[in-house]
This record gives sequence, structure tokens and C-alpha cells, in this order.
Amino acid sequence: MEKRLKYIADLVKGKIVGDEDLIINGVNSLDRASQGDISSLFDNSYKDLATQTKASALLVSEELDLFEGPQVVVDNPKLAYARISAVFAPPVPRFPGISKDAVIDKTAVIGNQVSVYPMAYVGKNAVIGDNTIIFPGAIIGEEAKVGSNTVIFPNVSIMHGCIIGSNVIINAGSVIGGDGFGFVKDNSENIKIPQAGIVQIDDNVEIGANNTIDRAAVGKTWIKRGVKTDNLVHIAHNVVIGEDSLIVGQAGIAGSTVLGREVIISSQSGVIDHTDIGDKAIIGPRSGVVKRVPAGEVVTGYPAVPHRSWLRMTSLTARLPKLLDRLKELEKRVEELENRQ
Amino acid sequence: MEKRLKYIADLVKGKIVGDEDLIINGVNSLDRASQGDISSLFDNSYKDLATQTKASALLVSEELDLFEGPQVVVDNPKLAYARISAVFAPPVPRFPGISKDAVIDKTAVIGNQVSVYPMAYVGKNAVIGDNTIIFPGAIIGEEAKVGSNTVIFPNVSIMHGCIIGSNVIINAGSVIGGDGFGFVKDNSENIKIPQAGIVQIDDNVEIGANNTIDRAAVGKTWIKRGVKTDNLVHIAHNVVIGEDSLIVGQAGIAGSTVLGREVIISSQSGVIDHTDIGDKAIIGPRSGVVKRVPAGEVVTGYPAVPHRSWLRMTSLTARLPKLLDRLKELEKRVEELENRQ
Amino acid sequence: MEKRLKYIADLVKGKIVGDEDLIINGVNSLDRASQGDISSLFDNSYKDLATQTKASALLVSEELDLFEGPQVVVDNPKLAYARISAVFAPPVPRFPGISKDAVIDKTAVIGNQVSVYPMAYVGKNAVIGDNTIIFPGAIIGEEAKVGSNTVIFPNVSIMHGCIIGSNVIINAGSVIGGDGFGFVKDNSENIKIPQAGIVQIDDNVEIGANNTIDRAAVGKTWIKRGVKTDNLVHIAHNVVIGEDSLIVGQAGIAGSTVLGREVIISSQSGVIDHTDIGDKAIIGPRSGVVKRVPAGEVVTGYPAVPHRSWLRMTSLTARLPKLLDRLKELEKRVEELENRQ
Repeated sequence: MEKRLKYIADLVKGKIVGDEDLIINGVNSLDRASQGDISSLFDNSYKDLATQTKASALLVSEELDLFEGPQVVVDNPKLAYARISAVFAPPVPRFPGISKDAVIDKTAVIGNQVSVYPMAYVGKNAVIGDNTIIFPGAIIGEEAKVGSNTVIFPNVSIMHGCIIGSNVIINAGSVIGGDGFGFVKDNSENIKIPQAGIVQIDDNVEIGANNTIDRAAVGKTWIKRGVKTDNLVHIAHNVVIGEDSLIVGQAGIAGSTVLGREVIISSQSGVIDHTDIGDKAIIGPRSGVVKRVPAGEVVTGYPAVPHRSWLRMTSLTARLPKLLDRLKELEKRVEELENRQ
Repeated sequence: MEKRLKYIADLVKGKIVGDEDLIINGVNSLDRASQGDISSLFDNSYKDLATQTKASALLVSEELDLFEGPQVVVDNPKLAYARISAVFAPPVPRFPGISKDAVIDKTAVIGNQVSVYPMAYVGKNAVIGDNTIIFPGAIIGEEAKVGSNTVIFPNVSIMHGCIIGSNVIINAGSVIGGDGFGFVKDNSENIKIPQAGIVQIDDNVEIGANNTIDRAAVGKTWIKRGVKTDNLVHIAHNVVIGEDSLIVGQAGIAGSTVLGREVIISSQSGVIDHTDIGDKAIIGPRSGVVKRVPAGEVVTGYPAVPHRSWLRMTSLTARLPKLLDRLKELEKRVEELENRQ
Repeated sequence: MEKRLKYIADLVKGKIVGDEDLIINGVNSLDRASQGDISSLFDNSYKDLATQTKASALLVSEELDLFEGPQVVVDNPKLAYARISAVFAPPVPRFPGISKDAVIDKTAVIGNQVSVYPMAYVGKNAVIGDNTIIFPGAIIGEEAKVGSNTVIFPNVSIMHGCIIGSNVIINAGSVIGGDGFGFVKDNSENIKIPQAGIVQIDDNVEIGANNTIDRAAVGKTWIKRGVKTDNLVHIAHNVVIGEDSLIVGQAGIAGSTVLGREVIISSQSGVIDHTDIGDKAIIGPRSGVVKRVPAGEVVTGYPAVPHRSWLRMTSLTARLPKLLDRLKELEKRVEELENRQ
């Protein structure tokens, strides 16, 4: 694909310094770019790379003397890079039409321009929206609904009755709508509480690979618009994840917990059940949240505390051997004082 | 479905206060119930919800003045709720018979009333018991045995030779019988120790989604009767999990460890290899067990210690800044004392 | 299978003490071995088991008086056990040829003696090397390449363009080449950075079950020769794992991090993004690495510190209640001193 630099600059509302007719045919990182590529200086601490890059043009936040080719000045070079990459990125490979080697129940409703690979399965009364792609090994359960322009990657299981929005991506191996983990003891035995609800995933969500998002006990587990999850994330029954939140790799959210908008749960963290996490709160990596987190707060550790407290505690824990030495020294001095007379 | 209140009360051995002929057609939580539903007051701290519920009848542990409709008094309202839910819950969707779009090796032995969805695979000499349901994308390996009334959800892989009991549920994406992680160094190279054993899962077990339960190096990895695992749980080769134990989300058990009966391993915890965990021991969330845990003990933290010790340590760690202040203050006072004469 | 003891001893370059014509027909652990088996004394602390074993022959590091049968003296009995097990272990079950119930795109290139089970899918222009086995439910994406003598277990997803070497094993449910987790904020919205790279897995690698190895944003995520991963491991985009490294269960490596050769990442640990881990470094269990680890270093804890420091910190944390008592006692004594005159 070839695009004039003018086209690219307009796309990201950038100001061109240099030749606007330059032909760009790719986008790449500073160190990997070659002739014809546009690259991006995300962060001025990488200026050295910018002097050595073989890119033909550069996205920058301010004009850069060190780079000789044309530059496009934008507010946010990383965001501009993402938007331009989307132009040049190869599209998701699409099976032409509906494979005769897929199995689609005759009661299912399939939209226009849908791509269904071989070995995919669409169950009774399921609905698939226009332009959606269903990869091999993906299973769309009975009565499930999938919106338009959505991509369901291989070996994803969307269980019966679940609802997936439009412009959603679900990476391979994820399970949407497995039974929630609900049992009650009858003497030694664990009696199952039937899980009769669903999972609802709203538009523009991306789910990572091998996630597990459980159906609600009653009602719905709800992943709201614009949420993105990384790989191996566990979301329990009746959880609600607010708009545009990010859940990073191997994190887990226990049952009925409610996250606000734009929350970040960092990698390998966990949140206890029945808890509220306020808008824009940030949970640091490897943290365990055991109580409500107010909006905007940053917490870390287990049990999670405000990040600054955690830094202080962590630093003092590392200094415990020295603190012990000081304590011992003091004991000696006190003993000497006691022995003075 | 419609049931007289009398039928329901008898099912849970409850005592009716009010009209035993009331018709019940569903079960739901206090806040979601509507007319015709029965609901349950699990815990008296939710009494307020009970006054506002639209449920037509209520399961209670003692008669409640605040609720005007009929009540069913039972010992354990939560358990009664689970049992009644099982009556009203929609059954697992069942493909009628054996799909012509499934692949079943001609040497496999399939019981009566088995449901096999399209895109399922049953290998050579595998055995499937009566009434069992095999979902699309589920793979039953060579020589594997699956009992009766068992549900194998989509994209589950049951590897060759593994044995699954009756009344078992295996949620989507789980792998039963992958190779255990066993290697021995030959200079820099890691030489594989062949994993020649199997996994045996006994009756009434439920396995969550995307679990990994490895086959034994020799002999069997053994999940005993009534065990329930949550999602993304890892169980290594030769582990034994005792009856009715619960393994919560994202926990992991390393090789050859043996859990007693009714053990609880909480979320995101790990247990080291070759260790015994006694009956009814409880491992707290996000804990790492590095040595034997006696029966009945509750441990937390990493390395895990008795829960009370952990609470004390955690609380003191949070107070380290104050302890440091006290230490500094003391140093000053001692210095003053030393300077007195 | 039957083998003379001489054959076995030669295989592991061992010295026979006893009858070299003894017929061996299996290999097993000391406690499970029966007549005809050879077993191995990995570690002299198990000598008691060696006196009770029913094995007919024994691999030992030095001749053992307590065992009456023939012995094979080798440098490393555990390594010898692995090598002999490989002789007796049942081979991976192999579908004879290419199933008519698999779907293989007509442009795919399939080597000699390849086994493709029913319900497997091989996409456009994919290449499969000689002797490789593709299990049911495994998906080989467009333009993907798989080497020779490789085993792709059930429900594995190898996404478009990824490259898998020879003598590789990928356990069930793993996802190779899902999209990396890369987003940039545009006000509240998370804009996807297209993930245009691939995953390359070199020869002799084994990937555990339900792993997630993400494709690079640009370039490749690279798992080098001889690496072994356990189950539920997460490897993010652009990570490089050096030769013969071991990644144990439920560990995660964040984006662009580079591991040297023979690194060990223990279970449930995490490594932050854009970090170097030197050759032969060892990350202890449940640790969180937040900065560079030099070659050969052993680190533990979160944030990870040298293992000895962690042991000291952990031990002092456990002693905090006693330290507090000593501090209080000292405060009392200082107060008494202050009150002396």
C-alpha cells in the first residue's frame, strides 16, 4: 500500500515539515524501519534512535533537528503511530464466505458478508452480525448473539445465551460464559448453585487469549464498552467492568465485584469479591485488593494499600536488617547507661 | 415450570408459614425476584432487601415479620436456595443424539442417550457413559473413559487414557492429561522425562474453564470425588486432591503434592511440590505454601504462616514507618541520656 | 518391549554390576516398580525405598549393598532414568495418515508421514514438516510453518504467519500468536496498536497446556531452542526467551523483555516489561521482577531482591512482633533512665 505523506498527516491532524508528496508504504519502530516507512518518536529519551533510523519520515511531538527527512508534528506521536499502523496493518485473514465445512444450525441467523471458517460451529437460534469473522474451532452456543464487525478467533467458546457486541475481538481459546464458581456446603458435600445468567460484552471490547469470563448466577456478568483484557484473565460471575477499563495479564476479579470506568488492574493482581473499584482507580502489579478502592486512587501490595504507603513499607522491609542492627546497638547503649552508676 | 409451595418446602424439608398452595414458577435473588418467584434470605444482614423484594415467597432461617408472603423456614436458606434453583434452572442444552458432524472412531463405545454435538471427536477405544453430553470442539482421546451423566463443554481436551467419572462437569477449554513438566538437565539441555501416567477424575467433580490437569509421570494424577475447581487452575503431575476440596481461581498445585479431604485452596495461591496438606486445611488467597500444613490449619502469606501470625505481621509491616519513628526518637533520647554528664 | 540390561547400560554409558543378560521390560519409580522393571535411585536419601523396591535392576550413582539385583552405575541416575524411559514410554498416539475429516487448504504443503487427526484445520499456504502430528481441534493458521517431528496437541491455535520448529511439542489449548496487548489512550478510549509481527518457536521447544504466547507488535516474539514452558504461562509481545530456559507454571513475562540462556522463571512469578534477565539467572517462585537481573543471580520476592536478602527480610518480618516487644521494652528502660534523677 502506498500513501502520500499528506494523506497520513491529515489522518492524524499533524503538521508536515518537509515534502508532503513523499510516498509512504509502511510503518515501523525506529530500529526496524526501512526506506519508505514512517516511524514515530514516542518519547524524547529515544532521540538517539531517531538519528539512526532508516525511516523516511517521522512522527514527532516537536520538530527535530537531528532527523533530515520530512516530519509530521502531532500532539501524541504514539497515538498517531497507532492510527497510521491501522492503515498499513495487514487485515485479519478472512475466509471467503461461509465454509461448507463449518456447522451452522439451520435456525441460526447469519448477517451479510459474514466469514465462517471450516470447523466453526454456530448453534441453535444463534445470531451473527454483518461482516463478523468466525475462526476455525470457535463455538457459538445456542441463543448466543454476536454483533457486527466482530472477530472470534480460533477455539473460542461462546456459551449459550451470551451476548457479544460489535467491533469486538475475542482472542483464541477464551471461554465466555462458563459456569460461575458457586457452591454451598451440605455437610462435607459442595452443592452447586445453578448459574442461570449470561455474559454480556459490549461494543469495542477486546478480550485476550485464554480468558475465562463466567456467566452470572442470575442476571449478567457485564463487560462494558471499550474494555480491553490481556491474556489468561479470570472474570468471575456477576462482575461488572466499567467502560474503557484495562485488565492486564493473569489478573483475576472475584464474584460480583464492580469496576468503574477506566480502571486499570495490572498484571497478576486480584480483586476480592463483592467490592467496588472507583473510576480511574489503578491497581498495581501483583496486588491483592481486599476492600473498596475510591475513584482515582492508586493501590499496590497485598493487602493493597495506597501506592506511596506500599513503597515506604517495601523500602523499610528491605531495611529491616539495618533496623535490627540499630535496635541491638541501642539495647547495648541502654544497658551501658543502666550500668553507669 | 410451576410448582406448589408445598412441593418446594418438602424438597428442602422446610416448614411452611402461610399458603402452601401458592404457585411458584421461579427462583431468584432478593433484588431481582419478581412475582411468582421464591427468594432466599441467606443472611440476616440482608433483612432490608427482604422487605423490598418482589418475591412471592421466601426461604428463611426463622420466621420474618417484615415479609408478608408465605415463608419456608429451613436450617440453611442458602443451601435450600441451591436445591430449589436446581429444579427451576434451565437444563444444559443437549444436542439430540449423536451428530453426523461429530467424528467418533468406530472402536469407541458410546452409551445410551448420549448427546454428541457436531465437531466433537471421540478417539479409538474411548468409552462414553449413558446420558453424557459432549459439546462441539471437545476431544476425547484414545482409550479415554468418560462416565455417565457427565458434561464435557466445548473445546475441552481429554487426552489419551484419562478416566473421567460420572456426574462430572468439565467447563470449556480445560486440558485433562497434558504432559507433566518433568525435565532433567544434561549439561545445558533439558531432557524430557516421559510422562507415562494418566489423570483420573472421580464422580461429582466439577472442573472450571481453561484448567490444566497434567497426567502423572507414572501412575495417576487423581482428583477425588466431589472436588470443585474454579477457572485457570493448574494441577501438576501426580498431585492428589482429596474428596470435596475446593480449588479457587488461578491457584496452582505443584507436582506430587497431596491434599486431604475438604481442603480449600483460595484464589491465586500456590502449593509447592511433594507436600502434604491436611484435611480441612485452608490456604488463604494469594498465598504460597512451602511446607506441610496440618489438618484444619488456616495459613496465609508467602511463605504461608498461620493466618493470625500473618495478620499480625501484615499489620506490623504497615506500621513500620511509625516503628522507625519510635526507633529514631529512642536513639535521640538515649543520646541525650549519654550526654547528661 | 524387552531389552537386555547390556543394551540399557550402553545407552546411558553405565557400568553393569551383575547379570548383563537380564531382560528389562519397563521402567518405573522405586515404589511402583514391579518385576522386570528397572528403577533409579535419584538421590541417596531414598536408599530405604531402594531396599524395598520390586524392581529387577537399579540405576545408581555408586554401587549399593542394600540392593541384591543387577545395578547400572552412572554419573546421573535421574538423567539415565529419563533416557531409558524414552525407550519404554508409549509413543504419542498417531492417526494413520491424513484424516478425510480434517480440513486442509489445497494450497497447504504437507510433508511426508504427517499425521493429521479428524477435526484439525490447516490454513492457506501453511507448511507442515515430515512426521509431524496434528491432533483434533488444532488450528494451523494461514502462512504458518510447522517443522518436522513436531506434535501439536488438541485445540492448539497457531495463528497466521507463526513459525514453529522441529521436534517441538505444543500441549493442548495453547495459543501461539494471539494479538499482543498494545493500546494507547485517546482521551478515555483505548486505541489498538496493530500487532503485525509473529511468534517464532525454535527447535526442541516444549510449550505447556493453555499457554498464551503473543505475536510481536513488529518483528517477532522469539522462543529459542530447547526452552520448556509449563502450563498457563503468559509470554507477551516481543519477548525473547533464551536457549534452554525453563518457565514454570503460571509465570508471566511482560512485553519486550529479553531472557538469556538457561534462565529459570519459577512458578507464579512475573517479569516486568522491557527488562533484561541474564544467562542462568533464577527467579524464585511467586516473585515479581521489576528491574534487570544480572547473569547467574538468584532473586526472589516482590520487588525481587537477591535470594539471601529476601530470606533475611522474610525472617525478620516474621519476627516483627518480637522486635516490637524489644522496642517497647527499650522505651520503658529509657523512660526509667530518664526518671532516675
